[in-house]
Amino acid sequence: MNGKEAAGKKALEEIQEGMTIGLGTGSTVYFFLKALAEKVAAGFKITGVATSQQTIELAKKWNIPMRALNEVTTIDVTIDGADEVDPDLTGIKGGGGALLYEKMVAKVSTRRVWIVDSSKKVEQLGAFPLPVEVIPFGWKHVEAALSEKGYLPKLRRDSEGHPYVTDAHHYILDLHLHSIADPVLLAIELDHLTGVVEHGLFIGITEKVLVGYPDGHVETMVKH
Amino acid sequence: MNGKEAAGKKALEEIQEGMTIGLGTGSTVYFFLKALAEKVAAGFKITGVATSQQTIELAKKWNIPMRALNEVTTIDVTIDGADEVDPDLTGIKGGGGALLYEKMVAKVSTRRVWIVDSSKKVEQLGAFPLPVEVIPFGWKHVEAALSEKGYLPKLRRDSEGHPYVTDAHHYILDLHLHSIADPVLLAIELDHLTGVVEHGLFIGITEKVLVGYPDGHVETMVKH
Repeated sequence: MNGKEAAGKKALEEIQEGMTIGLGTGSTVYFFLKALAEKVAAGFKITGVATSQQTIELAKKWNIPMRALNEVTTIDVTIDGADEVDPDLTGIKGGGGALLYEKMVAKVSTRRVWIVDSSKKVEQLGAFPLPVEVIPFGWKHVEAALSEKGYLPKLRRDSEGHPYVTDAHHYILDLHLHSIADPVLLAIELDHLTGVVEHGLFIGITEKVLVGYPDGHVETMVKH
Repeated sequence: MNGKEAAGKKALEEIQEGMTIGLGTGSTVYFFLKALAEKVAAGFKITGVATSQQTIELAKKWNIPMRALNEVTTIDVTIDGADEVDPDLTGIKGGGGALLYEKMVAKVSTRRVWIVDSSKKVEQLGAFPLPVEVIPFGWKHVEAALSEKGYLPKLRRDSEGHPYVTDAHHYILDLHLHSIADPVLLAIELDHLTGVVEHGLFIGITEKVLVGYPDGHVETMVKH
């Protein structure tokens, strides 16, 4: 068992019958969804709310009952991955491109639990490039503004070299910051930039992180 | 001559040959574009950058040479309308639905001039509903959050009753605030709300407003 699978399976303990569950996106969430689908196949009743087209398709394939975010009033818990997590449980998300919908689902949720393998645990954020979702109209001026600040933005492209397009029809600029000294200040700065839709800094958004290790054990990090 | 036409024609004085000009959107800009098109037909050389599909179509019809925002590095001046302007030259824009692209073009411009008829001049902003551009995925939760704050949001709909969709594929919630005591605080609050792409508060964005009156005279408001 790898760390992703260990964390993904462990997250089942966060779920109770009848819950509305936010379903994250990515390779660790994949293992959670697979384990959840097995319970659903055995008669366990839940409702899922997806954070991406990718997750909708997995849920459909595995017969997990789904509703759209606009069709639910509350979400009991959201299980999602992360690209980096620091000791304050601040994270970088969006490596898979779903940061906007992930943040929207997270904000509506009563509880948020992240599942990661141990390689995602860091002392300081920023080695992983920070995704910034931008409006395609005029994205080059947002890129120029971010370059001027020294943030080394790079337009994300798909395998054919075209700009990567998010589920919400936006582009992504990945900021190659190497280290982020003050995530809160950076988040405020990015929030105010015209043309920026959302960014991958998730601050004060999760209460618990399940960290899976290659030997199969899972560490639980909670907000202190 | 009505006030809109008077202001629109007056704005020609802001233009010099060879300039790259941001072209706003709406019924007052219409008169500016028409007057500009006459100069262009007579051999005057400029390049326009549109803020909406509506303006692109007018420019095409009137043979105004255009480039996309991503194709230019700077804009010399942007001429745009506004739905309300207060004595500080803070405005509400977005009645026509183009606020996002209008703000992006404005931010790139060296100078910004608004053209309005005298009915748009107010002592305090807010009688005009404030447009907030939101992500369709989960917009109902943004609406709920804005309702909870007492901002009376109302989803904008088209003539067939469907949600109005902006050029950037988003929805608009119009906030029926009646009066806005502190535009700066409200703008910060909206900027930080997940699911909000942009809002119609334009603060510190224009340096000059040309106000047309029914008798054809034009008042110039400048930043003091």
